[in-house]
Amino acid sequence: MVPHVFVIFGATGDLARRKLFPGLFRLMRSGLLPEQFRIIGSGRNSPGTDEEFRYKLAKAVFKFSGSARFDDHVWEEFAQRITFQTSSKDDGEALAAAVDAAMAELGPDTRKLLYLSVPPDSMEPMVKMLGATGLAEDARVVLEKPFGRDLESSRSLNTALHQVFAEEQLFRIDHFLGKEAVQNILALRFANGFFEPVWNRHHISYVQIDVPESIGIEGRAGFMESTGTFRDMISTHLFQLLGFLALEPPVHVDAESLRVEKRKLFQAVRALDPDRVVFGQYEGYRDEPGVAGESEVETFVAAEVWVDNWRWKGVPFLLRTGKAMEQSRRTITLGFVEPPLKMFDSANGFDSQPNELVFELTEDSTVTLELRAKRPGPALKLDHAKLHMRFSEAFADAEPLEAYERLLLDVLRDDQTLFTSAEEVERLWELCDPVLRQPPKVHSYEQGSWGPAQAMELAGERGWRVPEKS
Amino acid sequence: MVPHVFVIFGATGDLARRKLFPGLFRLMRSGLLPEQFRIIGSGRNSPGTDEEFRYKLAKAVFKFSGSARFDDHVWEEFAQRITFQTSSKDDGEALAAAVDAAMAELGPDTRKLLYLSVPPDSMEPMVKMLGATGLAEDARVVLEKPFGRDLESSRSLNTALHQVFAEEQLFRIDHFLGKEAVQNILALRFANGFFEPVWNRHHISYVQIDVPESIGIEGRAGFMESTGTFRDMISTHLFQLLGFLALEPPVHVDAESLRVEKRKLFQAVRALDPDRVVFGQYEGYRDEPGVAGESEVETFVAAEVWVDNWRWKGVPFLLRTGKAMEQSRRTITLGFVEPPLKMFDSANGFDSQPNELVFELTEDSTVTLELRAKRPGPALKLDHAKLHMRFSEAFADAEPLEAYERLLLDVLRDDQTLFTSAEEVERLWELCDPVLRQPPKVHSYEQGSWGPAQAMELAGERGWRVPEKS
Repeated sequence: MVPHVFVIFGATGDLARRKLFPGLFRLMRSGLLPEQFRIIGSGRNSPGTDEEFRYKLAKAVFKFSGSARFDDHVWEEFAQRITFQTSSKDDGEALAAAVDAAMAELGPDTRKLLYLSVPPDSMEPMVKMLGATGLAEDARVVLEKPFGRDLESSRSLNTALHQVFAEEQLFRIDHFLGKEAVQNILALRFANGFFEPVWNRHHISYVQIDVPESIGIEGRAGFMESTGTFRDMISTHLFQLLGFLALEPPVHVDAESLRVEKRKLFQAVRALDPDRVVFGQYEGYRDEPGVAGESEVETFVAAEVWVDNWRWKGVPFLLRTGKAMEQSRRTITLGFVEPPLKMFDSANGFDSQPNELVFELTEDSTVTLELRAKRPGPALKLDHAKLHMRFSEAFADAEPLEAYERLLLDVLRDDQTLFTSAEEVERLWELCDPVLRQPPKVHSYEQGSWGPAQAMELAGERGWRVPEKS
Repeated sequence: MVPHVFVIFGATGDLARRKLFPGLFRLMRSGLLPEQFRIIGSGRNSPGTDEEFRYKLAKAVFKFSGSARFDDHVWEEFAQRITFQTSSKDDGEALAAAVDAAMAELGPDTRKLLYLSVPPDSMEPMVKMLGATGLAEDARVVLEKPFGRDLESSRSLNTALHQVFAEEQLFRIDHFLGKEAVQNILALRFANGFFEPVWNRHHISYVQIDVPESIGIEGRAGFMESTGTFRDMISTHLFQLLGFLALEPPVHVDAESLRVEKRKLFQAVRALDPDRVVFGQYEGYRDEPGVAGESEVETFVAAEVWVDNWRWKGVPFLLRTGKAMEQSRRTITLGFVEPPLKMFDSANGFDSQPNELVFELTEDSTVTLELRAKRPGPALKLDHAKLHMRFSEAFADAEPLEAYERLLLDVLRDDQTLFTSAEEVERLWELCDPVLRQPPKVHSYEQGSWGPAQAMELAGERGWRVPEKS
């Protein structure tokens, strides 16, 4: 791999500390980084000397890369390549000079990778700075969501980006897509003869994508107040999961083919109906430090989505996510059509346990086929059973990559498969537009609950499927 | 439940000792026997006094009903109802008198259940005796296989049976069908939306029913020499498993509806082609005590079966069973059609691990969906994985019934669902007839192997699927 200069904007921020530096460190440890590289952290305020910066990072990397995987020797190798240079939207000259120097030092093949972990408001001015200083030239650039805050602003951001970068240079990251379990949806669907024949409206009667979080905003009032859960989660992570679940078989499993299929899919998604979207706010949210006393920001969203194509017409996709909820889960549930006849008696409630395929996308991810089987005993009565796989057990000898680690590696490999295109971003805002224009009333819900009653009603009789953790 | 008199012919034999008395004891212990009952053991030779007989049974029941489930108090209750009365094909008067006395003692509603665990040769004369003595009257009678040894003799046996019994009185037992896992095939297929849509020639490309046994004949030379593995296993157990796997959805899950479907299915099975049946005999078989020095009896059979109906046309069903083989298994494997495209690279041999649904029917039975999934790591490469269920774990709180226990209970309940009709038996002999008329050459195979090379060839490139025990 050719030498690289990594420039991390927002290098003293939370994401850099928790994910980016630990991710790069792990990649180096696994031998997946180029032999020659430099990392230049940047931000408005200096964290002190380079030594002081490295010391702070050492603690973070030790903590967040998994201490078992820490290695003093590798850390020394890694740390000596890290420096810091301040920059801002108005002042990028010193940084540009530092980057040029590092590039010159590593030789003529050296590539530049810019990681923009900056607040949404700073994105456009920063992009202009990158263009003006020449930092943008031949660089690949990784962008963190939100990619705008509605259709109009996303178009404006994309226009600004395209004035400085070609679309191929841009890697819009959605860390949900870096998860092993998400990529595994593609493998399960398209490498087995079993799933694809039933992966459609004839055999699946509902899909739920459920990402409740038990934690509250944990001090991130500024972010929540300005963004809200709908913009943060629905137009991004949850729709992306829906994309991978629902897309048609691509011509190849590569960036181009998957983008074509995701585009087709999102074109087939019906724009959200504000009457079928429920907003909630947990009790006590307005008392959190930094939250407005009369805040109407939603910390919970449930939404009904319809995909109007041959495969999915008539199958409800229910999305749900929120803070301060009863459990933290990342659960995808596909419910199979009921058999046409009830031929068996039930031992334990035939109707309450439908036949479902369940993906848990947490770090310890699982796939489960929830079934009705014969309960052992004298009568042929049904009970609930499951076929189950835990990835950490099935592949005990494999080393899974953490989502950011995986996605950083993909940027290095110039592989856009798991990244989002400008067109996709705009289409997703288009789908969300009716809700942004006419936001639903925000209903209050108890902390530790499953959200407001209105969200329960949205799911109808079937309710929200929350399988036992396995 | 009305009072019962059980008459066990062959009461000092192996089956009675290992299965019938322990089965009845367990049923009593679980409260599944009628409150009032008598058990009259019978046979040509007396086992001594009733006390001596009970003492021998106590040891057997303790050993074979699972010592953890033994209970001295229940045993006393059970044992005091057991007596012995000699009988033979020429002499049933004393037994008839003993049965009449027991019936009179238990009252006018009392039912008779006769269990004929007698050698094949004795079956017809015994049936005549039952008719002549009046023992047959209003009795239900359980018959052990073999039900004849070819089409002609099975017809003759059925004629003899029908001279004495109505077909509704007859319970032809096949203990494979008493296994939880076999009944569970029906539950999985017809109580879930997931399986039935792919349960056909469009999505399944092969089926294997594999019952290798690692033990040799273990002293049962007489039985093996006179019956052989083909008659013992193929025309009975393995075809019955095929029946449950392949039948169409019945109108109801009851005896009548399932018999209709099994009849239709076996009508659609093509008579076996002797060129597609492999016989084997393990090395050293001829040296077993009681085996003829030039014996051509098969201790191994592999057979290709075709079901010429809309659901299965073109899907090979491979059956295999034998003694002295590498493993003891009772494995049903359904292989799914390969996806039309190979879209992924393999981490560990894409082709060697097809997508299969596997039932293990052993006592610790399992269901496994063998899959290709993404191997965790930096690339989207496939590896082998599985969704898995072990019944003893899934239903740790349930008490499964042993096969004979279950089937005895069904006889008590007058439920013919898991028993075989006269018509079915004759149809199965019809299917086997070409092989019996023109038996394949018997090939020698090494003990502890998977049988002769010719059987490997029968399976073609795919080979015999022997999934790892899980």
